Amino acid sequence: MVNSMSNKFQTPRGTRDFMPGEMLRREYVFSVVRKVFERFGFQPLETPAFESWELLSAKGTGGEAVKDEIYYFKDKSGRGMGLRFDLTVPLARVVASNPQLAKPFKRYQIGRVWRYDKPQAGRFREFWQADVDIVGSASMAAEAECIACFAACLDELGFRDFEIRLNSRRLLNGMVDAAGIDKKKMPAVLRGLDKLEKQGQSVVGKELKKAGVKPKQIRSLMEMITISGRPEEAISKARSLLEGFLEAKKGLDELEEIIRLSEAYGTASRITIDLSLVRGLDYYTGPIYEIKAQSKSGKNVGSIAGCGRYDNLIELYGGSPTPATGGSLGIERIYEIMEEEGMFKSGPASQINKTKVFVAAATDDNKLKRAAIETSQLLRQAGIPTETDVMARKLKQLFDYVGKAGIPYMIIIGEKELKTGRLTLRDLNKREQKSMGLPNILKYLKTA
Amino acid sequence: MVNSMSNKFQTPRGTRDFMPGEMLRREYVFSVVRKVFERFGFQPLETPAFESWELLSAKGTGGEAVKDEIYYFKDKSGRGMGLRFDLTVPLARVVASNPQLAKPFKRYQIGRVWRYDKPQAGRFREFWQADVDIVGSASMAAEAECIACFAACLDELGFRDFEIRLNSRRLLNGMVDAAGIDKKKMPAVLRGLDKLEKQGQSVVGKELKKAGVKPKQIRSLMEMITISGRPEEAISKARSLLEGFLEAKKGLDELEEIIRLSEAYGTASRITIDLSLVRGLDYYTGPIYEIKAQSKSGKNVGSIAGCGRYDNLIELYGGSPTPATGGSLGIERIYEIMEEEGMFKSGPASQINKTKVFVAAATDDNKLKRAAIETSQLLRQAGIPTETDVMARKLKQLFDYVGKAGIPYMIIIGEKELKTGRLTLRDLNKREQKSMGLPNILKYLKTA
Repeated sequence: MVNSMSNKFQTPRGTRDFMPGEMLRREYVFSVVRKVFERFGFQPLETPAFESWELLSAKGTGGEAVKDEIYYFKDKSGRGMGLRFDLTVPLARVVASNPQLAKPFKRYQIGRVWRYDKPQAGRFREFWQADVDIVGSASMAAEAECIACFAACLDELGFRDFEIRLNSRRLLNGMVDAAGIDKKKMPAVLRGLDKLEKQGQSVVGKELKKAGVKPKQIRSLMEMITISGRPEEAISKARSLLEGFLEAKKGLDELEEIIRLSEAYGTASRITIDLSLVRGLDYYTGPIYEIKAQSKSGKNVGSIAGCGRYDNLIELYGGSPTPATGGSLGIERIYEIMEEEGMFKSGPASQINKTKVFVAAATDDNKLKRAAIETSQLLRQAGIPTETDVMARKLKQLFDYVGKAGIPYMIIIGEKELKTGRLTLRDLNKREQKSMGLPNILKYLKTA
Repeated sequence: MVNSMSNKFQTPRGTRDFMPGEMLRREYVFSVVRKVFERFGFQPLETPAFESWELLSAKGTGGEAVKDEIYYFKDKSGRGMGLRFDLTVPLARVVASNPQLAKPFKRYQIGRVWRYDKPQAGRFREFWQADVDIVGSASMAAEAECIACFAACLDELGFRDFEIRLNSRRLLNGMVDAAGIDKKKMPAVLRGLDKLEKQGQSVVGKELKKAGVKPKQIRSLMEMITISGRPEEAISKARSLLEGFLEAKKGLDELEEIIRLSEAYGTASRITIDLSLVRGLDYYTGPIYEIKAQSKSGKNVGSIAGCGRYDNLIELYGGSPTPATGGSLGIERIYEIMEEEGMFKSGPASQINKTKVFVAAATDDNKLKRAAIETSQLLRQAGIPTETDVMARKLKQLFDYVGKAGIPYMIIIGEKELKTGRLTLRDLNKREQKSMGLPNILKYLKTA
C-alpha cells in the first residue's frame, strides 16, 4: 500500500531530486563557479523561469519549431508561455529593453533551464547552466577574457587536462565560399559538419551530396575543415588555402588576436584550432569555441562548455545593434565528471561544509539537556555547523545517528562536565578524546 | 521602432528581472540564510520546478481547487503538471518515497515557487522561499530549534525588533470545543479567525454568525482567542478558561515546553502568545507560529515567516506516519524591508562582493595592455575581483566607466610602471594614490 502510493507520486519524467549529500557537492561546484565569475568582474542577473512565447519563438534562436523542444503552456488569460531553454535569450531581452545599461555589460547567470528532450542516460529535461557574457564589446579581448574565466573555473574545480577548441563562423563562411558551394546551402552544410565528430567524413559526405553539394566541393571543404591543432601552424595553413577570401581572412585575424591576448591571460597553451567545429546554434556570427576535457584516465569526456560571438542577436530582440559574446559552462557534465573521477574525494572539494559537531546530554536530565542546547548555540554563534538532539533520543541512539551521518566530532555533557565547565571533545575518526574548556573547543573546531 | 519592439518582449505578468545591483544584495541575503541553516545542521535538498498534478492536487494541501491558483499545464504526453507552489509538498513527496532516510531528516531548501495570484504591489507570481523542516521528530525540541534557527537568520541579517507569535492548532480545536461550537464548523471558524487581524472582531463575528455559530458561542470564542502577550500570563489565563478540555491542555503543555526549551536557545524573550493566530494552511496539526518584524521607525511590517507542525502530511503523500515541523522564511518580504530600511547601507550587508579594482593600460600600446591583463590575472588568482578593459577604450573612457560602476580602486600601468615594476594604486573614494610593488598591492587589496 505504502509502496504503490509512493510510486504514484514521482518526479516528472526527465527531472530529479537532489538529496543532501549530492546537493552539498553541487552547491560546492556552483559556489566555485560563482566566485570565479565574480573575480573576473561578472555580475549576477536573474530572470523569470518562463518567458513569453513571442520571445522564445522569435527568429534568430529557434522560431516556431522550438515549440516541440520546450515546455509550452498557456497562462489563464490564454497567453502563450514557455519554460526558458537557455540563459542567452533572456539576456538578449534584458539588454534590448534596458538600453541605459552601461557597456560592457558583463553578466553571469547560474540557473535551471528546461528542454523537452527524450530523457536518456545523463540527459535530463531540467538541468542547470552557468553562463557568462560580455555585451557591448566588439573586441577579441572579450573572447580572451571569457576563455580565461572558464579556464579559471575548471582550474579551481581541479580539472587538469582540458582543451579550448577554437573556430570562427566567418571562417566557416569563407571555407564554404572557397569550396565553391552556394551560400544558400550554408545551413545544410553546417548541419552536416556538426555531425562530423560523431559520424565521420563518409556519412557527412553523403549528407552533403544529398544537399546538392558537388563531390569536388566536398573534397575541397573537407581538406580545409580538417585543419586542426596548434594555433600557429593551423592558422598559417588555413591562410594559404584561403588566400583572397576576405571573410575568411577577417576570421583568421580574429583568431590570431584571441591567441595573442590569451598569451597575456596565460591560457594560450590551452587553445587548439579545430576548423570543423560548428556549434549548433544559428545565431553565432564570429569566433566560436568549446572546451573538451579528459578524465584522469585519459578518456575523452566530451564538451563541457560551448561559447561564441553573436553580434546580431540583441537587435533581433528589438535592441540597438550590440556586439556580444559569451558562453555556457556545462555544469551538469562537469559535476558528473567530478563524481566519476572521484574529484570530491580530495583537495578543496572534499572540505564541504556540513555538520561538524554534535552536542549531546549524557542522560535525559533537563539540566544537562539545557546545557547541551546552550553549548550548541555558542558553537553556532562562532560559525561552527552544530547539531543537538531534537527528538528525545538516548545517548546510544545518538551515537548511532552521529556515526551514520558522518559527523566528525561529538561533545557529551554529563554532571561532571556541568560542574567543572571542562567539556570532553571526541574525535570520532581518530577515536580519541580531549578535555577542554569551551573557548579552546571553539578555537580547535574552527580550524579542525 | 526600437521601443515598440522592446515593449513586445517583456517579462511575463507577475514576474521580474533582477538586475546586478539588486541581485548582489539578494544573493547576500540568500547566502546568510544558507549559512545559518547549515550552522544548525540543516542540509540542502533540491526538487524539480514542476510536479505531477496528482501530487499537487492531493488532499491535505489544496485538492482540485488548487488548479486556479497555480501554473497548470500538460506535457506533450498529456500528463498534468504544475509549477510548485511551495517547498513543503515536494519535501513530503521526497520523504514519503524515501523511507530509508535517517531521522531526524533536517533539510533546508531555498528556491522559487509560483502562484497564479492577481499581481499587486509587493506580490508576485514568481517568488523565492527559504524553508527549514525537521522530519521524524514529535518532540517540541524540533519547534524550539526551528524558532532559534529563524531568529538567528534575522539577527545575522541585522533585524533587531521581531517577535515570534505562537499558537497551536490543538488549542484552537480546544477553544472551539470549549465555546460549544460544532466541530463540523471548524473550517469556517478558522477561515473567519484568519481575517481577524485585518478586518476586526465585528466583521469576523458577522461571518461566524452567517456560518451558523451562535452569538453566545462567538462571545465565548472571542474571549479566549483575544488572549495574547507574555507567555506565562497568557498560558495561565488560557489554562483557567479551558480547564477540562483535554486537547487544549495538550496544546498548552506543548507551548510551555517550547517556551522552556527556547530559554536554553536564548530565544524565549522573543516569543509571545497569540491565541487568534490561525495560519491559513489546512494541514497543521500542532504548534503554529509566525514572525512579525518592526521597522526601524517602529512601523509594523507584517509577517516574515510562517511555520507549524504537520504530523499527518507525509502519510497523506503515501509515507508511513511521520511527525514533521518547520516553516518558511518570507525571503522576498525580508529583502524588501532591508531595502526600505536602508539595511544594506551599513554593517556586513554593505560589504557585498563586487569588482574591487580595475587595471588599465595608460595608452593603447600592446605591451602595456598585455601588462594590464597579466596584472589583472595575478589579482584574480589572489581572489580579488578585478576588471580590465575588454573593449579597446581610451583611458578617459575607462575613468568614466570605473566611476559609474563604483569600482573603488584603479591601477594604471604606463611605461614607467612597466620599467620599475612599482605600480600606482589609486583609491577613488579617498582620492589618493600610493606607489607599491604588486605583492604589497595584493596584500593591501585583500584587506581593503
